[in-house]
Amino acid sequence: MYKLEDLAKLVGGEVIGDKEVVITGIGGIEDVRPGGITMVATAKVAAAAAAGPAAAVIVPPGLPSRRTPMLRVTNPRLAFARLLELFNPPQRFTPGIHPTAGLGEGVTLGPDVHIGPLAVIGDRSKIGARVVIYPGVVIAEDVEIGDDSIIYANVVIREKTVIGRRVIIHGGAVLGSDGFGFVPVDGKYVKVPQVGRVVIEDDVELGANVTIDRATTGVTLIKRGTKMDNLIQIGHNVVVGEDCAIVAMSGIAGSTRLGDRVSVAGQAGLVGHITIGHDSVIAARSLVINNLPPHSYVSGTPARPHAEDMRVAAAIGKVPELLKTVRELQKRVAELEGKVLS
Amino acid sequence: MYKLEDLAKLVGGEVIGDKEVVITGIGGIEDVRPGGITMVATAKVAAAAAAGPAAAVIVPPGLPSRRTPMLRVTNPRLAFARLLELFNPPQRFTPGIHPTAGLGEGVTLGPDVHIGPLAVIGDRSKIGARVVIYPGVVIAEDVEIGDDSIIYANVVIREKTVIGRRVIIHGGAVLGSDGFGFVPVDGKYVKVPQVGRVVIEDDVELGANVTIDRATTGVTLIKRGTKMDNLIQIGHNVVVGEDCAIVAMSGIAGSTRLGDRVSVAGQAGLVGHITIGHDSVIAARSLVINNLPPHSYVSGTPARPHAEDMRVAAAIGKVPELLKTVRELQKRVAELEGKVLS
Amino acid sequence: MYKLEDLAKLVGGEVIGDKEVVITGIGGIEDVRPGGITMVATAKVAAAAAAGPAAAVIVPPGLPSRRTPMLRVTNPRLAFARLLELFNPPQRFTPGIHPTAGLGEGVTLGPDVHIGPLAVIGDRSKIGARVVIYPGVVIAEDVEIGDDSIIYANVVIREKTVIGRRVIIHGGAVLGSDGFGFVPVDGKYVKVPQVGRVVIEDDVELGANVTIDRATTGVTLIKRGTKMDNLIQIGHNVVVGEDCAIVAMSGIAGSTRLGDRVSVAGQAGLVGHITIGHDSVIAARSLVINNLPPHSYVSGTPARPHAEDMRVAAAIGKVPELLKTVRELQKRVAELEGKVLS
Repeated sequence: MYKLEDLAKLVGGEVIGDKEVVITGIGGIEDVRPGGITMVATAKVAAAAAAGPAAAVIVPPGLPSRRTPMLRVTNPRLAFARLLELFNPPQRFTPGIHPTAGLGEGVTLGPDVHIGPLAVIGDRSKIGARVVIYPGVVIAEDVEIGDDSIIYANVVIREKTVIGRRVIIHGGAVLGSDGFGFVPVDGKYVKVPQVGRVVIEDDVELGANVTIDRATTGVTLIKRGTKMDNLIQIGHNVVVGEDCAIVAMSGIAGSTRLGDRVSVAGQAGLVGHITIGHDSVIAARSLVINNLPPHSYVSGTPARPHAEDMRVAAAIGKVPELLKTVRELQKRVAELEGKVLS
Repeated sequence: MYKLEDLAKLVGGEVIGDKEVVITGIGGIEDVRPGGITMVATAKVAAAAAAGPAAAVIVPPGLPSRRTPMLRVTNPRLAFARLLELFNPPQRFTPGIHPTAGLGEGVTLGPDVHIGPLAVIGDRSKIGARVVIYPGVVIAEDVEIGDDSIIYANVVIREKTVIGRRVIIHGGAVLGSDGFGFVPVDGKYVKVPQVGRVVIEDDVELGANVTIDRATTGVTLIKRGTKMDNLIQIGHNVVVGEDCAIVAMSGIAGSTRLGDRVSVAGQAGLVGHITIGHDSVIAARSLVINNLPPHSYVSGTPARPHAEDMRVAAAIGKVPELLKTVRELQKRVAELEGKVLS
Repeated sequence: MYKLEDLAKLVGGEVIGDKEVVITGIGGIEDVRPGGITMVATAKVAAAAAAGPAAAVIVPPGLPSRRTPMLRVTNPRLAFARLLELFNPPQRFTPGIHPTAGLGEGVTLGPDVHIGPLAVIGDRSKIGARVVIYPGVVIAEDVEIGDDSIIYANVVIREKTVIGRRVIIHGGAVLGSDGFGFVPVDGKYVKVPQVGRVVIEDDVELGANVTIDRATTGVTLIKRGTKMDNLIQIGHNVVVGEDCAIVAMSGIAGSTRLGDRVSVAGQAGLVGHITIGHDSVIAARSLVINNLPPHSYVSGTPARPHAEDMRVAAAIGKVPELLKTVRELQKRVAELEGKVLS
């Protein structure tokens, strides 16, 4: 329980109305309970928030006052994120290795590591300080995991994978599986050994059941700060830049390279061996088949500049009507020809 | 082994032909063995069934007799399902907890629970009567699972998830992973703590490697009787209504709400923050980007009413021809203009 | 370390330049280190290879010499695959069963099997010679796995599944989960018991987090030599022919049959109950809704013959312009009509 003015100090905001009101929890507009604080990011939902049971509302600058008390901040979503953490402190894990966990030979463990039941760590792997490894995780040989990373249950990490600091990997993700590489010989496929590895830099988050293949040779690389949603496929030798966001069910085929701060919306596909420039945005379900310059914004199948794709999509809806119009024109022209050319 | 008349009694049908024939098994038209019973739901496959080795065929009313004996029933698929179960009784699990399973503190177990080897159940979780938990399942803290549910191998269930009765969750599914929520701040992403939970109501079935994210705050909710195929993504704060069917590889983005009895075919995508009315049908690979009223039937990218989408799709195939026609018209009009306007 | 002439003998090639040069490793053009050998399959990347630090380059016949020594071979990709294996010999597994692995009653093990920690094998399952089972794998009852197969961590294999020889299954894959079969009765779904099984023939490779459902009755069958990438869905009663290649995130719905040597590119979808002829190619993101004859090459949604789809796709981009042209034509025709018909 906090006074609203304490929360304002914490997130750097200004109270409008009663500073002394006691805040007992936090929630979204639809689930906040009486006594809690909620958040309004846009005017669209302000009425719903005002009508709800919240004791206070976080609002952005310029939003007209609907109901006090309010906590006005520059970035309501950020303030909300911080207060969510305040009211829901992250789980503390008792340092230690569960007796049913299996550690290989030469495993190195940093201080205050937590390794849950039935996790397996292969020979010579190095686990950084305060790393949390949930039950059922299988880490192979020669893996490195940086400080403060969290590996959720039943994740699979194959040999030689390198994972940075503060990385979060959600349940069921598979890192370092063989890339999809075969040589066709006389109508059959001969496997190309996949002897490269996967490197995940600091502050990356990977969703549940994501798959990231090891490189054929060299490295499949996910750079610092990139966030991936669930059920994403990253092919061998892909490089994803820093601070990218990739939404669920997208796939990036082998050897493609994303610059920094690229956004890929859900169910998008990127073919192999292309390069996506920094700060590009790829809309949901796009199929990108060519290189994109920096600051591109594309959509569609195949992906086009978004404005053009919108024009094309709108035009497509008019084609049934257009067919009629043209048939009619043909008749009118034929009639004219009958009169004029005879 | 049953006499055909016994089976008829069981499923409420009528035998045409020899009631005494002994049925020794059951199978589809392509795999039924001599002595077995098979099923014909539509006239299309009746000849194949008649030509096969089955000792009897389940048929719907009105199908002309091709070969006796037949078992005529109102709903052949339902009768087939019931006889499949009769000839293949579900596996019985010896109640008990395998000595290698790991139970946390304060775990509550209902009567006749079966917990397989190497499963993990977190502190304070409550497991209902006759629940079956396969090997390698990882259940976190404060989870509830209702009576008669089945959790297949290597499923991950995160903290505070609530699962109803008679729920079936197939292998590798991940429930309660963090929703994909980040605030962009100065070109980097700050994580929004995902402190809500997942609630799965009674009689839901979830396919293999499905991912269902926990809510940011509040709940991600799958209502009673809904069935999901494999590799489906459900974003945070999604609500799926009762008795929906969602086919493989579909994705529903955050905060979207489906009414009851909605059908979503394979590889469909629904963007976030939309509402789909009761009894709607979303065709395969549709991308739904707007609210849909009840009883909608949509297809395409973006999804349109199905009849319109069919018209547009047919028209699109004619565009290459249309381009030629219009070029020709232009010439003819120019020629006319030459004659008339000169 | 090998002399280049030794490598030439091994892969059946011809050295151009210094035969005695010592090769200390192998890598792709972008990651090969000094002293290593790399490979050029097409002229496009020859310059990059020549400019790099490699001690020798594998080249195809007819590529003009850029820098010696070169190792000229008929199939550079195949030679590269073989040398990758030479320089990176596959991991050897000590035969034996880890004490924390759990074996059911009546399990049969071939010679030199390796079973990792915390793997589970159900009653009566038969594991062939030299099979490697990684940690966390859960194999149910009555499963058969042929000689020399490799099952990576946390794979789930349900009861009665049959797996051939030299099969590779990557982490998190689920084989034999229930097919998606329900009968709608009064607005609710009644489950159809899925009592068939999955059969995987010799030399198949299955990617990470792939899901392959068991048949309703009969068999879901993946034939010899077929390779699947990650996150692929195979529905119940599907038959995939020999030597097919299916790229990541594709889905094949129930009862569909693929011939031999079919290629399915990424994110494709095939509806149920269709037949794809031998040697067909299905382009990325295609949605196949009809039978295809042998040697088809299709793309698009819905999938059309590729040449036609390309024509349609190109034409679609011209529709916005076409709308303008037709509007203009309408004006011109109206003007002509004013002159001629008045």
